[in-house]
Amino acid sequence: MKSRAAVAFAPGKPLEIVEIDVEPPRAGEVLVKITHTGVCHTDAFTLSGDDPEGLFPAVLGHEGAGVVVEVGEGVTSVKPGDHVIPLYTAECGECLFCKSGKTNLCVAVRATQGKGVMPDGTTRFSYNGQPVYHYMGCSTFSEYTVIAEVSLAKINPQANHEHVCLLGCGVTTGLGAVKNTAKVQEGDSVAVFGLGGIGLAVIQGAKLAKAGRIIAVDTNPTKFELARSFGATDCVNPKDFEKPIQQVIVEMTGWGVDHTFECIGNVNVMRAALECAHRGWGQSVVIGVAGAGQEISTRPFQLVTGRRWLGTAFGGVKGRSQLPGMVEDAMNGKIQLAPFVTHTKSLEEINEAFDLMHEGKSIRTVIHF
Amino acid sequence: MKSRAAVAFAPGKPLEIVEIDVEPPRAGEVLVKITHTGVCHTDAFTLSGDDPEGLFPAVLGHEGAGVVVEVGEGVTSVKPGDHVIPLYTAECGECLFCKSGKTNLCVAVRATQGKGVMPDGTTRFSYNGQPVYHYMGCSTFSEYTVIAEVSLAKINPQANHEHVCLLGCGVTTGLGAVKNTAKVQEGDSVAVFGLGGIGLAVIQGAKLAKAGRIIAVDTNPTKFELARSFGATDCVNPKDFEKPIQQVIVEMTGWGVDHTFECIGNVNVMRAALECAHRGWGQSVVIGVAGAGQEISTRPFQLVTGRRWLGTAFGGVKGRSQLPGMVEDAMNGKIQLAPFVTHTKSLEEINEAFDLMHEGKSIRTVIHF
Repeated sequence: MKSRAAVAFAPGKPLEIVEIDVEPPRAGEVLVKITHTGVCHTDAFTLSGDDPEGLFPAVLGHEGAGVVVEVGEGVTSVKPGDHVIPLYTAECGECLFCKSGKTNLCVAVRATQGKGVMPDGTTRFSYNGQPVYHYMGCSTFSEYTVIAEVSLAKINPQANHEHVCLLGCGVTTGLGAVKNTAKVQEGDSVAVFGLGGIGLAVIQGAKLAKAGRIIAVDTNPTKFELARSFGATDCVNPKDFEKPIQQVIVEMTGWGVDHTFECIGNVNVMRAALECAHRGWGQSVVIGVAGAGQEISTRPFQLVTGRRWLGTAFGGVKGRSQLPGMVEDAMNGKIQLAPFVTHTKSLEEINEAFDLMHEGKSIRTVIHF
Repeated sequence: MKSRAAVAFAPGKPLEIVEIDVEPPRAGEVLVKITHTGVCHTDAFTLSGDDPEGLFPAVLGHEGAGVVVEVGEGVTSVKPGDHVIPLYTAECGECLFCKSGKTNLCVAVRATQGKGVMPDGTTRFSYNGQPVYHYMGCSTFSEYTVIAEVSLAKINPQANHEHVCLLGCGVTTGLGAVKNTAKVQEGDSVAVFGLGGIGLAVIQGAKLAKAGRIIAVDTNPTKFELARSFGATDCVNPKDFEKPIQQVIVEMTGWGVDHTFECIGNVNVMRAALECAHRGWGQSVVIGVAGAGQEISTRPFQLVTGRRWLGTAFGGVKGRSQLPGMVEDAMNGKIQLAPFVTHTKSLEEINEAFDLMHEGKSIRTVIHF
């Protein structure tokens, strides 16, 4: 079938809106009509060419919501008409990782997903007869996309797709990092580095966890008002200080912060976030994705004196089991999604969404198909 | 009073056995007659001059056992005749850290301890009228030493000091890292880098925790027999492989090891230990003390894919509350200490103990006063 799609033909170039060909779903696969998709920094990272695993041409996009159109052989968990959120972290329920009870990092489709193809090693997308790669197992920048059954969370059909599509990546990552990875407790102190969608979601998660002090850190002070509205108690601009930001925060707090979160992807900020974690028990969670080959460093004394360095992917959330409940929480108002949606655009305007993000003007632009 | 002591007069020089002057204990202090002391790599590290906080002249030694001789004003928890183990990690029970329930890193005497003096800022040791510094709040290389009350664990007077002195540092650190820091569970896999006293204690701790596979790693294969006797199931010499040891261990195990422990103080080994921790949930505990200014590094992807980087000091053990129970466990045979004592020497032979350690011939030499 034909589908409108924003295709990344080459690194560093704008997306092109074209009509691609989409093959029907094969065994274990599902054809989904995407209704809405967010535009995330990870899409921009891959489009820039800095992602060493980036493949072109490809249909990017991984933060979407849609409706099942057709299912392939053997698919039992969803049927046409079901509302779904695509998952870049699958949940097969069968692998060592799914069964461990310790992680959401399912490996069922990991190897092929990283190569831009479906689990059988081929692509369902083509343009002018040439194959086009999938992306993160989702490819939500196409009106019709094919997704593995294990990579789809079935959600309440009453949910507002313009909002819940954000649970496909950034908001879930931030909320989950607080709840599943750091396990923030009532009264704990929190510092959040980077006030994009993930950082603001971390603040929302910390507020939900009844954290005490919530310190928001960004070099762009225009983000502070929104951060405060989400629950930040202190906003700090590192540019206002001569000394390293970790020293500033340790001095603000006495011995550091119980939980810190790096939501940028900057290895120097990752170090700062670790080093302002509380002596004795503070932990720092790496959420941001760093550039290829970049490394984090610190003196081991930081760990020996009780700090813990962690990371998270998709906030530790198991998509098929846990995302439906988060959608319910969004519908009943426990999770606030509307404040993240600062802009909406049509698919034809998608490159403007990237511009708004690069200019720091948007939290999330949601594309309506 | 006069006391025989092995004094470190200058970095890089052998200790000198001299008669020093020891002042009586002041308020909150205790005079202890040391009966036995281990010689640990940390003593050698400071003596070498590589420790940027090393002070000279000083009475080194921090792994001892002894008997209380006299108590200063206000001391209530010990009395003359009590058997004690000096603690380089105090436990005041009153500070933010002691009260947190999350860490053993008491700060009661931390600042002065690091400066080689008693909590009132002065030293009780002198030689020819010149002050001699304390070390790690213990200074067990003197027959008589003065120690803060909060830095003494009162133990069963029937305990064998030649053995339980090792609970003052290395063995407790290794056992505690397994139990308190990593919290190893039955069936978990473990890798231990470095088969000195701490590494062997980690193996013993892993065995006590009913770990499954226990992989012992050292470049000195003469350590492997002892490692196996403690419970190691696999012994690996990195020199036997062309590829990095983390890759060897990941290949041995499929996805890495549940818990890894660095017991050397080598920042490159710390990286290897992290990178062979299990994808999704593996954790790596830094125990070894690295040289001044050295840093650990890795790609943040290691953390984002679920590995956790931790550290421990004194195995997370609260000395005054928990060490007495560990002494009981040593007396009833649950904890084995005898195999660590490969050599015994008199105080006059203490430099030979350092030589044996540097040559890799000893696990622990215990000095008898």
